[in-house]
Amino acid sequence: MQNQAHHVVIVGGGFGGLYTAKTLAKAKVRLTLLDRRNFHLFQPLLYQVATGALSPANIATPLRAILRHNANTQVMLAEVSGIDPANHRLLLTDGELTYDTLILATGVTHAYFGHDTWTQYAPGLKTIEDATTIRAHILKAFENAERETDPARIRGWLTFVVIGGGPTGVEMAGALAELAQHTLKRNFRNINPAEARVLLIEGTERILPTYPPDLSSDVTTTLTKMGVTVMTNAMVTDVQSDGVCYLQNNKTEQIHVHTILWAAGIQASPIGRMVAQTLGVELDRIGRVIVQPDLTLLGHPEIFVIGDLANFSHQGEKPLPGVAQVAIQQGRYAAHLIKARLNGKTLPPFHYRDLGNMASIGRASAVADFGGLHLHGFIGWLAWLFIHIVNLIDFENRQLVMLQWAWSYFTRNRAARLITGEEALPVGRPR
Amino acid sequence: MQNQAHHVVIVGGGFGGLYTAKTLAKAKVRLTLLDRRNFHLFQPLLYQVATGALSPANIATPLRAILRHNANTQVMLAEVSGIDPANHRLLLTDGELTYDTLILATGVTHAYFGHDTWTQYAPGLKTIEDATTIRAHILKAFENAERETDPARIRGWLTFVVIGGGPTGVEMAGALAELAQHTLKRNFRNINPAEARVLLIEGTERILPTYPPDLSSDVTTTLTKMGVTVMTNAMVTDVQSDGVCYLQNNKTEQIHVHTILWAAGIQASPIGRMVAQTLGVELDRIGRVIVQPDLTLLGHPEIFVIGDLANFSHQGEKPLPGVAQVAIQQGRYAAHLIKARLNGKTLPPFHYRDLGNMASIGRASAVADFGGLHLHGFIGWLAWLFIHIVNLIDFENRQLVMLQWAWSYFTRNRAARLITGEEALPVGRPR
Repeated sequence: MQNQAHHVVIVGGGFGGLYTAKTLAKAKVRLTLLDRRNFHLFQPLLYQVATGALSPANIATPLRAILRHNANTQVMLAEVSGIDPANHRLLLTDGELTYDTLILATGVTHAYFGHDTWTQYAPGLKTIEDATTIRAHILKAFENAERETDPARIRGWLTFVVIGGGPTGVEMAGALAELAQHTLKRNFRNINPAEARVLLIEGTERILPTYPPDLSSDVTTTLTKMGVTVMTNAMVTDVQSDGVCYLQNNKTEQIHVHTILWAAGIQASPIGRMVAQTLGVELDRIGRVIVQPDLTLLGHPEIFVIGDLANFSHQGEKPLPGVAQVAIQQGRYAAHLIKARLNGKTLPPFHYRDLGNMASIGRASAVADFGGLHLHGFIGWLAWLFIHIVNLIDFENRQLVMLQWAWSYFTRNRAARLITGEEALPVGRPR
Repeated sequence: MQNQAHHVVIVGGGFGGLYTAKTLAKAKVRLTLLDRRNFHLFQPLLYQVATGALSPANIATPLRAILRHNANTQVMLAEVSGIDPANHRLLLTDGELTYDTLILATGVTHAYFGHDTWTQYAPGLKTIEDATTIRAHILKAFENAERETDPARIRGWLTFVVIGGGPTGVEMAGALAELAQHTLKRNFRNINPAEARVLLIEGTERILPTYPPDLSSDVTTTLTKMGVTVMTNAMVTDVQSDGVCYLQNNKTEQIHVHTILWAAGIQASPIGRMVAQTLGVELDRIGRVIVQPDLTLLGHPEIFVIGDLANFSHQGEKPLPGVAQVAIQQGRYAAHLIKARLNGKTLPPFHYRDLGNMASIGRASAVADFGGLHLHGFIGWLAWLFIHIVNLIDFENRQLVMLQWAWSYFTRNRAARLITGEEALPVGRPR
């Protein structure tokens, strides 16, 4: 080990942290990557785990496996409890580390706008455990409907509400419709899964509000054809174990439903607040850290904040979106800047190169917005698939994932329809 | 639905229950298959999930998917709470069912010989949750060793004890050795995973005591070469969170170890006791139900007990072993007898056709005992692989499983090395 070498500590093994580490693979630094989990999670496909098309291991790869050829890198399973910037010290729940350069890339988590009780009834989708819990909820709803005799109760079990019409909500709603319409065909004897209702509730005037309007309207048409009810200008006002209330056209409506999924809001991970309190830097409305043009903190050029945790507002009118491409490019930039500094140089400010946005809607349909070029339908889906193959490039088992993918595409099968974990037992009515 | 048809109720979707249902697919009966879980589990490969080579969904298939073309069959997620044989009624935790013929096939669970506290320190391997919990234990042990500085503590984390030298114990020990020696190579910076010790503790004079002696000795040689320490005539006397005590040559020895796996004992599932109390039938030492030559209960020809739950002692000196082949053949026999009875006929007693036993030891080695023919090494492994392909035949995604298998064979990779579930957090010393 080069114990005298410049020590770079990266907190978080998501896209941002991983691309920083990989870009520094041959650099003359000592590198420590901390994460609470032992794997990198390919979050864009998490909804496929939640709907049983992929297994957790298909989209999660051990960090140690990804970085085993990074000779200068040590992976450490640990949790950060505080920062001592004066002494360049990172405090862990079970120890401490000193750093020369610190990269914070811990991402975001769900936000319920202060409605903490909603958490238990409307789980969000950020972790592997979220995905397997949601998978169990969804599959148990069909099981409970099959056991039920009262038509109103059956309807309650066969109703699925997705709150939030951004990419995650759209993808979840599409996958749910497909599960009900195709995958579960002939699986039940008392109910017809195809009668399930999937409702997508969006607060603004259109779904995918960050995409161009023509793509939003195209996706609405596709989802409607698939059996999803798209509701816009609908503000959710309450979430309970057996229902959702929302306000639309100044009227409060209620839906009897047991399976409610949350895709409506995010907030920065708690490390953002920790940084703000210790270093006095500014946070935005959802707790993200406001960064300088070079992704460092004001007065602390040795601390970088990148990816979803960062609010970078030096390009365009709005902060950069919380997507994988931003994190990847910021991770690479941070690594290059560290290397430049080691040679006594610096770099121009970070500049994001927008490669476009895309969302998939079910089996063979997607929308993609590449600047002027708007793709949709099957062509959009091929583009979506291609980009995802490219981004899976770091995964040892990407061929297998693609095969699994192709398999579920052609058979419409979702082999991973397992009710596991705490949700598995007891079988029964209340969730 | 043929509501007037003879109603066969099967409890348990393992090999026994599933083969009964499949053999009755075209019969003029109404069939209900109950299980607490929504999937059939291919238990022979569960140790591959526990060591990260396969994902849960690779070896678990939704019961509804397997039986979706069984037009006469209804799958029900439910838990049995009692039996009312006088009224042909099965009591569920949330309802009841009447039957004309009842098939009990709920299998076995772990037994700790009355040492209930051992359960928490030495988990056994019967469910998907067992497998993912054990996987997390094993992977966290390496993570903890990497964080540790005291050599004795490191040695404690890098020691793995498998209690019980039957097929499950042998397969676990082999897979663990492979994980440490090959898969984790270059994954750590402070420790060398290949220095991990895997100890297999067997109480009798040889491992695989139900196999011919020459195969036991061959497996001992193979395991030893792989780095497993095989200990025979060693009786475990205590299990705690940080150690195992055992008696060998009249001396009590102690091993400092944090990861202890239980493969030493089984007992019948609780439904056995329920049947004994209600119907007055006899149970054997480990709670299995003693069955008549036609697999029914004395005085209750309408109730069958099959598979691991049954003690069938009408053939050979000992009861039939608790292996998949026995359950499969008994399921088929029960189905054929039901069909015969519907035509006013009967069948000769059940007769088990022994197709042989096999156990796999790591990457390319296995032993097989086909009556007079004893195979070992690579040839044994090919036989093992072939039989497992044949038995996976009911699985929609068997090609994918085989591909995944081939993949981990050639790359020695175990892609599913995920620390998930409750075990995931917090990272820390005590388990």
